[in-house]
Amino acid sequence: MENIFSDRISDVPRSFIREILKVTLDPEIISFAGGLPNRDLFPVEELKNSTIKVYEEAGREVLQYTNSEGFLELRRIIAERYKRKGVEVSEENILITTGSQQGLDVLGKTFLNERDNVIIEEPGYLGAIQAFSVHRANFCPVKLDDEGMKVDELEQQLAANKCKLMYTVPNFQNPTGISYSYERRQSIADLLKDQRLYLIEDDPYGDLRFFGEHQPSFKTIIPERTILLGSFSKTVVPSFRIGWIVATEEILDKLIIAKQASDLHTNYLCQRIIAQYIIDYNFDAHIQLICERYGGQRNAMINAIRKYFPAGVQYTEPEGGMFLWITLPEGISSIQLFEAAIKNKVAFVPGNPFYTYDIKDTNNLRLNFSSVDEKMIETGIQRLAEAINEVLD
Amino acid sequence: MENIFSDRISDVPRSFIREILKVTLDPEIISFAGGLPNRDLFPVEELKNSTIKVYEEAGREVLQYTNSEGFLELRRIIAERYKRKGVEVSEENILITTGSQQGLDVLGKTFLNERDNVIIEEPGYLGAIQAFSVHRANFCPVKLDDEGMKVDELEQQLAANKCKLMYTVPNFQNPTGISYSYERRQSIADLLKDQRLYLIEDDPYGDLRFFGEHQPSFKTIIPERTILLGSFSKTVVPSFRIGWIVATEEILDKLIIAKQASDLHTNYLCQRIIAQYIIDYNFDAHIQLICERYGGQRNAMINAIRKYFPAGVQYTEPEGGMFLWITLPEGISSIQLFEAAIKNKVAFVPGNPFYTYDIKDTNNLRLNFSSVDEKMIETGIQRLAEAINEVLD
Repeated sequence: MENIFSDRISDVPRSFIREILKVTLDPEIISFAGGLPNRDLFPVEELKNSTIKVYEEAGREVLQYTNSEGFLELRRIIAERYKRKGVEVSEENILITTGSQQGLDVLGKTFLNERDNVIIEEPGYLGAIQAFSVHRANFCPVKLDDEGMKVDELEQQLAANKCKLMYTVPNFQNPTGISYSYERRQSIADLLKDQRLYLIEDDPYGDLRFFGEHQPSFKTIIPERTILLGSFSKTVVPSFRIGWIVATEEILDKLIIAKQASDLHTNYLCQRIIAQYIIDYNFDAHIQLICERYGGQRNAMINAIRKYFPAGVQYTEPEGGMFLWITLPEGISSIQLFEAAIKNKVAFVPGNPFYTYDIKDTNNLRLNFSSVDEKMIETGIQRLAEAINEVLD
Repeated sequence: MENIFSDRISDVPRSFIREILKVTLDPEIISFAGGLPNRDLFPVEELKNSTIKVYEEAGREVLQYTNSEGFLELRRIIAERYKRKGVEVSEENILITTGSQQGLDVLGKTFLNERDNVIIEEPGYLGAIQAFSVHRANFCPVKLDDEGMKVDELEQQLAANKCKLMYTVPNFQNPTGISYSYERRQSIADLLKDQRLYLIEDDPYGDLRFFGEHQPSFKTIIPERTILLGSFSKTVVPSFRIGWIVATEEILDKLIIAKQASDLHTNYLCQRIIAQYIIDYNFDAHIQLICERYGGQRNAMINAIRKYFPAGVQYTEPEGGMFLWITLPEGISSIQLFEAAIKNKVAFVPGNPFYTYDIKDTNNLRLNFSSVDEKMIETGIQRLAEAINEVLD
């Protein structure tokens, strides 16, 4: 019988990670698979108090339908925080989205016709691959080295294809953990100056820098060509699904139409709670606490890798974020390793879902260090090392 | 310069209602324009207490990322409530969505290729027109009479076009307020039995029946061909954006991929709050209270129409919901009336945005009776009657 479903949904890769997360529900498994923040750090009491205050001060208003742009005070807070970092934006440039995943969806809706070209990092963020696949993008992948997208490959893609969007995670990239160097940002900006495409700078992890120097946002280097995405999911709370898009007013005007067709507006109570939380508490101190803890977890993972992994296994050394990226010796299958690892009660995400084309297997894998405590990280890496040795044999 | 935006976003009608709502921010204007619930009826204290309980019982868990399907307990509650009304569904058939607007978006994503045919009521729900326009639907409108879609027109559309989806609001339709009669439901079901299309039964208002007999859901008449949408926006709280889709597991499997690409999952705190609210309070009594109040507002509006409107103006007499539909004498412009009405400090939505094709003007308009109190309704209708008389002269 003929397929009644859309071509797009038949083509979107089934979420491999979703399947993996099911496997890892076993409480005995130490999971480096998810992309979850450490729940011990959630500011539960502060959010509860902020919630009560919002109910008391705006009980009826906050339950009613609201505008599609988002809560004005929250947009002001976001703009103010950017200004402190030297990114000049106003609340008029900000659209609140239902997580940055929705940011990607409305960007896809707003820009992409079927088969439009989208430059994307390889390996790249799975959620972006899914969102743009739904809008039938044609991906033009550009490989990463430890300073960002490779300039020569980017130049080739730009010369060979007319591209509308370019998707990047310049700080602590998902899945690799690498950050774009200052020089690389400049070189990329130079290449894009004369292009008629928009660079999407997805920055969910930018605040989570453990050490090293903060690098300038593309929004300050090529402001007119950059669309910036942000999120409170990694710094305050993921379950509220509050993110945002920073863009010119001309683009925002179109994005709002797409946003409205998507869910009318983002949960208003939770927009107000986050605004109240930032007004009433020391958000920067909270971010610093997260950085200290994750920094410790990152070090624990790298130390354990050095201690237990066999020679020939490469790994990135991120200066922030939530992930690092492992490259096994050539020819070793991360899918095969996954099976051995699960038997050994440890989980990760094999590399293949981070590629935009159908690749059955890779010798790469992603490890998350944010959601597991330091002491368990060493045990988990030890178990993983055993599985690697088993597969190597 | 060439348009960089997608064709879809260039084609989606700009939200006329959004523009109208801006005009009606003037506090002196009595607005029958929006589709807002009456905020005086929001169960503020009950929701606040439920919220505190959720924080206390599941403070950390409820802040973490969760699954895309939605909170299991909430899906059980929804299934249980359907069973009480004779609709046999299980939690396995339910996907929680970010409002039913997102339900429409993920259905568009899941089913529609460019130019696929979608049958829709004329006049039809604006949010559905927007959502399906984004997915480049080709609309096949079928006119409504006071018992539902006209069967002969539906038959013609089905014969002339291969259609994938059919969109209906069988209870207290937006914008007309009409409900499908028992016989009409049966006739439509008979027509659809041999078709390979899915009927979307959007039912945000079904619980808001003021009088008259409850009619069976299409989900009980042709279950295998029906996709049912529901929402808590009209019965508990709109700002949380919590709705759902009921579908077969085969379809749900695809919808979850689309949902995940859209926003990963719906706000988890608020899913929990609504579940807690329904567990701890008498939700049915609350619905009854809304029905009594809206029923009174509906009667106040119809009585005022009878008292003040000139002869020749027709109106629907809904048995529930939030809207009624006015037909002015042939040749009278509702856009022109809108200008006269605004000067007279009363607002409504002119009929044209409820049509799927570019129609500059109609002699129809939508009036909302849920968000204005009884005493203001009479004043508002009196003002509107003056504006009508002015335009008629």
